[in-house]
Amino acid sequence: MARILDTIDSPADLKKVPLEQLPTLAREIRDELVTVASKNGGHLGPNLGVVELCIAMHYTFDTLTDNFTFDVSHQSYVHKLLTGRRRQFHTIRQGGGLNGFMNRTESPHDSFGAGHAGTALSAALGMAKARDMRGSKEHVVALAGDAALTCGVTYEALNNIATTTKRMIVVLNDNKWSIDKNVGAIANYLNNIVTNENYSHLHERAAKFIERIGGSTAARILRRAEEVTKGFLLPSVIFEELGLTYYGPVGGHDIPTLIKTFEFLKQQEHPVLLHVITEKGRGYEPAMTRRKAFHGTPAFNPSTGETASTGTTPTFSQLLGDHLARFAETNDKLVAITCAMPNGTGLERFQPKFPERYFDVGIAEEHAVIFAAGMATKGYKPVVSIYSTFMQRAFDMIMHDVCLQNLPVVFCMDRGGISGDDGPTHHGLFDIAYFRCVPNAIHMSPKDEDEFVDMLYTATQHGGPIALRYPRGTGSGAKIKARPLTVPIGKAEVIKEGRQVAIWFYGRMGDMARELADQLEARGYAAAIVNARFAKPLDTATLAKYGADADLIITLEDHALMGGFGSAVLEELSALKSTTPVVRAGWPDLFIEHGKESELREAYGLSVSGVLEKTGPYLQKIKPARG
Amino acid sequence: MARILDTIDSPADLKKVPLEQLPTLAREIRDELVTVASKNGGHLGPNLGVVELCIAMHYTFDTLTDNFTFDVSHQSYVHKLLTGRRRQFHTIRQGGGLNGFMNRTESPHDSFGAGHAGTALSAALGMAKARDMRGSKEHVVALAGDAALTCGVTYEALNNIATTTKRMIVVLNDNKWSIDKNVGAIANYLNNIVTNENYSHLHERAAKFIERIGGSTAARILRRAEEVTKGFLLPSVIFEELGLTYYGPVGGHDIPTLIKTFEFLKQQEHPVLLHVITEKGRGYEPAMTRRKAFHGTPAFNPSTGETASTGTTPTFSQLLGDHLARFAETNDKLVAITCAMPNGTGLERFQPKFPERYFDVGIAEEHAVIFAAGMATKGYKPVVSIYSTFMQRAFDMIMHDVCLQNLPVVFCMDRGGISGDDGPTHHGLFDIAYFRCVPNAIHMSPKDEDEFVDMLYTATQHGGPIALRYPRGTGSGAKIKARPLTVPIGKAEVIKEGRQVAIWFYGRMGDMARELADQLEARGYAAAIVNARFAKPLDTATLAKYGADADLIITLEDHALMGGFGSAVLEELSALKSTTPVVRAGWPDLFIEHGKESELREAYGLSVSGVLEKTGPYLQKIKPARG
Repeated sequence: MARILDTIDSPADLKKVPLEQLPTLAREIRDELVTVASKNGGHLGPNLGVVELCIAMHYTFDTLTDNFTFDVSHQSYVHKLLTGRRRQFHTIRQGGGLNGFMNRTESPHDSFGAGHAGTALSAALGMAKARDMRGSKEHVVALAGDAALTCGVTYEALNNIATTTKRMIVVLNDNKWSIDKNVGAIANYLNNIVTNENYSHLHERAAKFIERIGGSTAARILRRAEEVTKGFLLPSVIFEELGLTYYGPVGGHDIPTLIKTFEFLKQQEHPVLLHVITEKGRGYEPAMTRRKAFHGTPAFNPSTGETASTGTTPTFSQLLGDHLARFAETNDKLVAITCAMPNGTGLERFQPKFPERYFDVGIAEEHAVIFAAGMATKGYKPVVSIYSTFMQRAFDMIMHDVCLQNLPVVFCMDRGGISGDDGPTHHGLFDIAYFRCVPNAIHMSPKDEDEFVDMLYTATQHGGPIALRYPRGTGSGAKIKARPLTVPIGKAEVIKEGRQVAIWFYGRMGDMARELADQLEARGYAAAIVNARFAKPLDTATLAKYGADADLIITLEDHALMGGFGSAVLEELSALKSTTPVVRAGWPDLFIEHGKESELREAYGLSVSGVLEKTGPYLQKIKPARG
Repeated sequence: MARILDTIDSPADLKKVPLEQLPTLAREIRDELVTVASKNGGHLGPNLGVVELCIAMHYTFDTLTDNFTFDVSHQSYVHKLLTGRRRQFHTIRQGGGLNGFMNRTESPHDSFGAGHAGTALSAALGMAKARDMRGSKEHVVALAGDAALTCGVTYEALNNIATTTKRMIVVLNDNKWSIDKNVGAIANYLNNIVTNENYSHLHERAAKFIERIGGSTAARILRRAEEVTKGFLLPSVIFEELGLTYYGPVGGHDIPTLIKTFEFLKQQEHPVLLHVITEKGRGYEPAMTRRKAFHGTPAFNPSTGETASTGTTPTFSQLLGDHLARFAETNDKLVAITCAMPNGTGLERFQPKFPERYFDVGIAEEHAVIFAAGMATKGYKPVVSIYSTFMQRAFDMIMHDVCLQNLPVVFCMDRGGISGDDGPTHHGLFDIAYFRCVPNAIHMSPKDEDEFVDMLYTATQHGGPIALRYPRGTGSGAKIKARPLTVPIGKAEVIKEGRQVAIWFYGRMGDMARELADQLEARGYAAAIVNARFAKPLDTATLAKYGADADLIITLEDHALMGGFGSAVLEELSALKSTTPVVRAGWPDLFIEHGKESELREAYGLSVSGVLEKTGPYLQKIKPARG
């Protein structure tokens, strides 16, 4: 049977679908989401939860003039399907295909790109104010999950909305989850609204709303909403006190109610917050029963929900959880802090062993780092595990609260380096640049899993701020020795001597360094391999030796070249008065798109052949040791 | 007559002072604050407002075991006077003297350093949790102004307090001001609590509290508090919903009431928020009538409150306000955004001319930048003016919301460079490092006022993200031409040719470059002077010329050497295959303390003689052009 979805090339086509056929469309969209995510992986659960919501939004608004901002925007798949991208949808998160997030360059329907949480309300407020100033009439709708309410910046926006515009719609997509269960007072608060029997009086404005919609519909809304929420259209004091008129909670899978509600909200001349209750993973059994796994999933078998076996090599994240727990057994000052990512950071493996020494603070990187600093003043050793890209949120706190006070906080930066499918908002390509300039900071990165454990151990023993950066996924599979060693701070490891060309690599680039050395040796050049281990402090003594003796130094890093590891090497060589030329290999000064890591490396010359090409002009001037 | 203050060498001495003499002590402290601030300058108004509050806190708690965290901590002068530092108090903010903020290395009574807003609650929560875990009994008290409630991170902490500890005291010092009047919904909300006649019912817990304190005292509290606040001990729903028990508002200048209140709060086994109403500048007439001027003041005449005439040279901040307003006359898309600093950024000169195009969003740098990005998507040209050091708060938003989307937002970074008296939390020494690594970003800095106006004009004409960095205070006093010129992006200005030594300076270092060139010429070396103008993109063509021809390149910058302008020059020279040696002059990899700029430059070698000394070994190898 022909699908309704196949007739929708734009939101205008959606508006032609009769109301009663929209639930069928919702089913088709769910099938499409499951089919594509089972092949490409992706944020399946969040998107299954907002199918009806996105249909209703596009049925009511017109995103060629109206603006939607989606918080994080990992839940934008349905939006993409409805805005002329259904034919490309099978390419999502694939190299050259659709991005997994909103992206202004991808479609005029994507008003604002995102990738990190908490930005939707601020961006929408900017748009709403610009709209007011230019005197146009379009609507601005911010869709944010309850997880966004754990982010401080969302609150900064809430504090400004009522004093800045009279027309803005915030849709609070309340599914009680971020990636894991939401935490903190606000989550409890929302839960109270939804479940508390005492919230029984109707809001004055809500009463008018029901009157407007009309009796029979209102009765239906009441019945449906009560089923889901045990309450209906209740005043929520927090939002009201911040100047937003609160409507809700309403059931998020009832398309007619949602459409009527949006039609009503369009006409309001005051900022509003609509509290919508949705079910993460809705309509796909495996995603409903395993919400965490299906927040973001690799490819899976659509009929069972099982992912392909990922092999037995543990990821760096898993190693963090396991070995931190191991060290915690003999170090009762060790505590672990995550920002709503127990799974992604591997700390879910620490939590059951030391629940009282594990803190999930919500998507609140700034608070996490200051909280860690506070604990450190009393003798604790906090390990803050945050992806490299999200650590950017806490830059000022790293600087002032930890490093200025020289407090012993460990920063574990997962996903340091290119992150693949998620694209530019998730690559961790800047942490050397923003850590290196901070006095007292140490920045290190291991060549493999065994060194990772050594460095983690070293970090937990160190008396000041220290950052440990490691890549997404697995390493080379190095065997982890029984007892970790302390890595001397600022000491590089010379893996192989060689007089002519010295390859200094940082972190995960060891395999490439070895292959490069082989290629150079094959051309007759004696090549040294040095595992730098530390971007700060650099091993000046070892570098001085190569700066004096080598004919060429090559630096390899999975980081932006601008301000990266190679730049640190240049600074040090300059201070050493060395004139040995340096070829720096890393990522160029561009936002790198999503795609397979190997393809991206090839495309941007961060490959053995790419580096050899850059090295060519220098090699021509060096006489091979062996012809 | 002997002062009580002179008998207080520690909080233990304070506790010996009879209750009835504390108002006298408060007067003495106020006199001391005015006397010292009139000579050294400083945050007078905030400290005059918390005299009784700090006395009461130290009378009740013991900061050798209990912990105080002060938000921003510019209001820590009274605390310093009472904790063994009264003899050094006259040195505050002077080189080698006391720091103007809390500082862990300065005193064991300073539990946590600060300087940027919003960190007090998170730090206190870390301490409270550490206390709970180790099983000790000390109290943790966070003192935060109402301005801290405009910061997102404060809210991140509030979201976590109730789920993390049962014992923590938040003191909300509500004076309705940050530096300027507070903005946003939360300020209105607090004002409602204080002034709304409908808040007339007593809190259940508050009733018990009054019972406990006893009848006559309670009556007095009621009377006093009502005078100040028109209300007493009201429930405040926002804080209660977040799980903190709210007490207040209470008058902040009534020492006995405050002491009784703290004694009560010490015994609570749930996190509490005490809402205290204080009067900024209290007790010193000029500071009460001119609150903004006395938030932070230069030296002044204590009998009149008049500051010495500062001359007629306008500061860069003033130029920003004036010229942005000038450009706004012919460019109706220009809007200006500040984070609670209309005075410090100079935007108070823009605001009266274009009130509808001026936005003060509170101390909310993250929101400010995303809000700007939102406006930019609709054709506006937002100019976000934030001090270099505070811009660190918005690093992730600069990266994602503006630069990844290549939106035309102008970042005006005031106080770029050493900031003098305020010290390490206020120096702007890292912005090149954290901007340069961001793709699509432009970073420029002018040599003088005229070029500043040209660059500001250029920024407002540019179609992408662009940052303009300039120093605190005045420049060389260059005359500003009638019509601004567009500065070509990425083009340096060769001020003086010279074949042997090329001095590349960035921003305000022009005078030093000239003097250095004179000294080199006097020694017989032909010296070029180049005003780099752009740290990103560098003028590669011009640099290539000197990289090929010069015997030595010297870079001068008012920025950290690590990842700074000189580092950019090294990267570019390496790419150009130049082997010309480079001497980089800037700030070393340390947190630079407070002090006079000239003294700090001398101490750290960022002086003509210091640079000449570094240059010596290179010059020895260069034959002077003229003997």
